[in-house]
Amino acid sequence: MSDTTVEHGYTADKEAYLRRLRRIEGQVRGIARMIEEDKYCIDVLTQVSAINKALHAVSIGLLEEHIAHCVVGAANESQLTGNPEIVQEKVQEASAAISRLLR
Amino acid sequence: MSDTTVEHGYTADKEAYLRRLRRIEGQVRGIARMIEEDKYCIDVLTQVSAINKALHAVSIGLLEEHIAHCVVGAANESQLTGNPEIVQEKVQEASAAISRLLR
Amino acid sequence: MSDTTVEHGYTADKEAYLRRLRRIEGQVRGIARMIEEDKYCIDVLTQVSAINKALHAVSIGLLEEHIAHCVVGAANESQLTGNPEIVQEKVQEASAAISRLLR
Amino acid sequence: MSDTTVEHGYTADKEAYLRRLRRIEGQVRGIARMIEEDKYCIDVLTQVSAINKALHAVSIGLLEEHIAHCVVGAANESQLTGNPEIVQEKVQEASAAISRLLR
Repeated sequence: MSDTTVEHGYTADKEAYLRRLRRIEGQVRGIARMIEEDKYCIDVLTQVSAINKALHAVSIGLLEEHIAHCVVGAANESQLTGNPEIVQEKVQEASAAISRLLR
Repeated sequence: MSDTTVEHGYTADKEAYLRRLRRIEGQVRGIARMIEEDKYCIDVLTQVSAINKALHAVSIGLLEEHIAHCVVGAANESQLTGNPEIVQEKVQEASAAISRLLR
Repeated sequence: MSDTTVEHGYTADKEAYLRRLRRIEGQVRGIARMIEEDKYCIDVLTQVSAINKALHAVSIGLLEEHIAHCVVGAANESQLTGNPEIVQEKVQEASAAISRLLR
Repeated sequence: MSDTTVEHGYTADKEAYLRRLRRIEGQVRGIARMIEEDKYCIDVLTQVSAINKALHAVSIGLLEEHIAHCVVGAANESQLTGNPEIVQEKVQEASAAISRLLR
């Protein structure tokens, strides 16, 4: 199911993703500190919403790159090989991932 | 807007919240590692969905405690003082927080 | 589980809710018409997002009124009767409803 | 931005989509009836969650077909014309639509 050898869509933006994830990691630690210090629950919830938003941005980026690279790459490959199944597989992976994010 | 001196609803479960946040922090680091190692984007997205779910559980817990402690506390206080405004304020804070989470 | 005889929090705004729901009903019919006329899928999706938003607004309104009326009402009642269980029940109903909406 | 003349991805499933939308329309009317009859707010909210879920299913279906037909179609076309811009446009439309649904 996973292929770890090829270059993925996000490889070019790798550093940007790692920076965003470090920031999110810091936000999670910030929430732990707020709870440690008995901060007001509504203020903690506001921070949780900020993390949700940051994670959504990461998801959208990864999905866009999955579609732009994996799906389109499979489409180009299937043009050469005449095999449409690899396209279907990549499309269904995308739609399953979107479905998990919407839940 | 915040009151940091009183004991909040979540104080009793503080350790449980801190444990859950440490686990979420580890999950965020795990995603960074996956990107570092060029893992497949769909597998990264599956992990992002798992964090979303864990954060939702934290949010629901904090909201339940806001309602059970802050809103109900304000209701009891307003019964004594005859001032309904503090209840309204807490209810609106809850509904604004829910609205931010739904977005 | 349901009590249909008492006046609920939303009773005062009943007409406003019914108007909003009639508008949402019209939006759903509008999407059916778009599909009937083979409109572009992305334009259909934009309309689905608009309905999601309108339904979220209805949900937030109903939740706010549940908290302001049912939870606070139970808090006041429990002050008189000394029975905290009815409060817990209403709080848990609220948090279960929020949880279903977040999913 | 829209193209209404070509056959879209969902055309084959048109009847299935129309059936699902008629059911959703009925669910919206059902909620209006519940409010009309002063049903318990939590029971109304449960029905709103059911509509959210049904709309999510419609969205996922439309997105999957956008990716499988519009994106893949553009990829095939760009192979012939050597113009990658149409692919980019379709991918960005998909990611913007997903972003609107996640909000």
